[in-house]
Amino acid sequence: MRTIDFYFDFSSPYGYIAAMKIDAFAAKHGREVAWHPILLGAIFKVTGGRPLTELPFRGEYHKRDFARSAAFHGVPYRFPSVFPISSVAPARACCWLAERDPARAAELAKRLYRAFFVDDVDVSTPDNVVRIAAGLGEREDAVRAALDDPAVKALLRRDVDTAIARGVFGSPFLIVDGEPFWGVDRFDQIERWLAAGGW
Amino acid sequence: MRTIDFYFDFSSPYGYIAAMKIDAFAAKHGREVAWHPILLGAIFKVTGGRPLTELPFRGEYHKRDFARSAAFHGVPYRFPSVFPISSVAPARACCWLAERDPARAAELAKRLYRAFFVDDVDVSTPDNVVRIAAGLGEREDAVRAALDDPAVKALLRRDVDTAIARGVFGSPFLIVDGEPFWGVDRFDQIERWLAAGGW
Repeated sequence: MRTIDFYFDFSSPYGYIAAMKIDAFAAKHGREVAWHPILLGAIFKVTGGRPLTELPFRGEYHKRDFARSAAFHGVPYRFPSVFPISSVAPARACCWLAERDPARAAELAKRLYRAFFVDDVDVSTPDNVVRIAAGLGEREDAVRAALDDPAVKALLRRDVDTAIARGVFGSPFLIVDGEPFWGVDRFDQIERWLAAGGW
Repeated sequence: MRTIDFYFDFSSPYGYIAAMKIDAFAAKHGREVAWHPILLGAIFKVTGGRPLTELPFRGEYHKRDFARSAAFHGVPYRFPSVFPISSVAPARACCWLAERDPARAAELAKRLYRAFFVDDVDVSTPDNVVRIAAGLGEREDAVRAALDDPAVKALLRRDVDTAIARGVFGSPFLIVDGEPFWGVDRFDQIERWLAAGGW
């Protein structure tokens, strides 16, 4: 089955909305989703980007648009009390789990996202990541060890480097048949692409 | 009739797409459109923004997305051979004409946009602005005089200051019943807003 490459950062509200929608979206078009957690912090060092809420003049707009976009897409949402956060720990947990079981890693990603954007749990902390992964049946000591494992760190670094090489500069960022789409607001264009095989 | 405030810069491809769609869009919802040309250059001095094609790493994506978004919306489009341009002259012409006849100024705006994004005419030059306004029946000497008229310059400056005070930071930017929407990709959320009176 052909894939949709789905790049997302755990601190990204639009990435969260996309994560809640993408399974049904891909299934409708007979596609599989390849989940790629990224670190926008590392990417912004290359691109000069900044978190939306820290952009001068635009922060308040985006906070409003996050909530409105979530409502538009029918996704529960609450602006977290700590924002933005480092997405290193949740991204590493997903990278580690994906090596063994990509579907389970995707489920973990969704749980982490919901914890952050619905239950206001700061998923930047190893403790919270470990607890959420344990809820999925993972052994706590194994998850905790993975978060500090040099091999896992290297995996994530490699994935982020690959994303940068493919032109990924934001979250969510989707690549379909080589075509790049930035933003959950490009789902309608992706649908057109999938139906027509181009534009 | 209640209005949709439509802020746009003549150098903005997404603003152009919105301009081609907004009349039918507003009519469908029983709204009038208030056309407000702005100068993103002046706004970027306040917000620290930059033209999309000059953003490191992102320029090529946006060039592709301009064309794809135009095709998605069924709007003819060609990336201009000179881009970005100063939008001062076309914005002044519209400000000047709107004082006498807002509907005619909106028609001029659409002609200027089509000249730039379909016919590859550099509408930053007074000569081209004068010629396009003349095609609409305006006297060439009157248009040319307006472009240098201190009163017209002050009108546009006032409009741009008002836009900044209202939080406008990009193009297109729409304000509906006080709610701000940035981007032609928010038309679907505006439709929801107009139908439901909120979100």
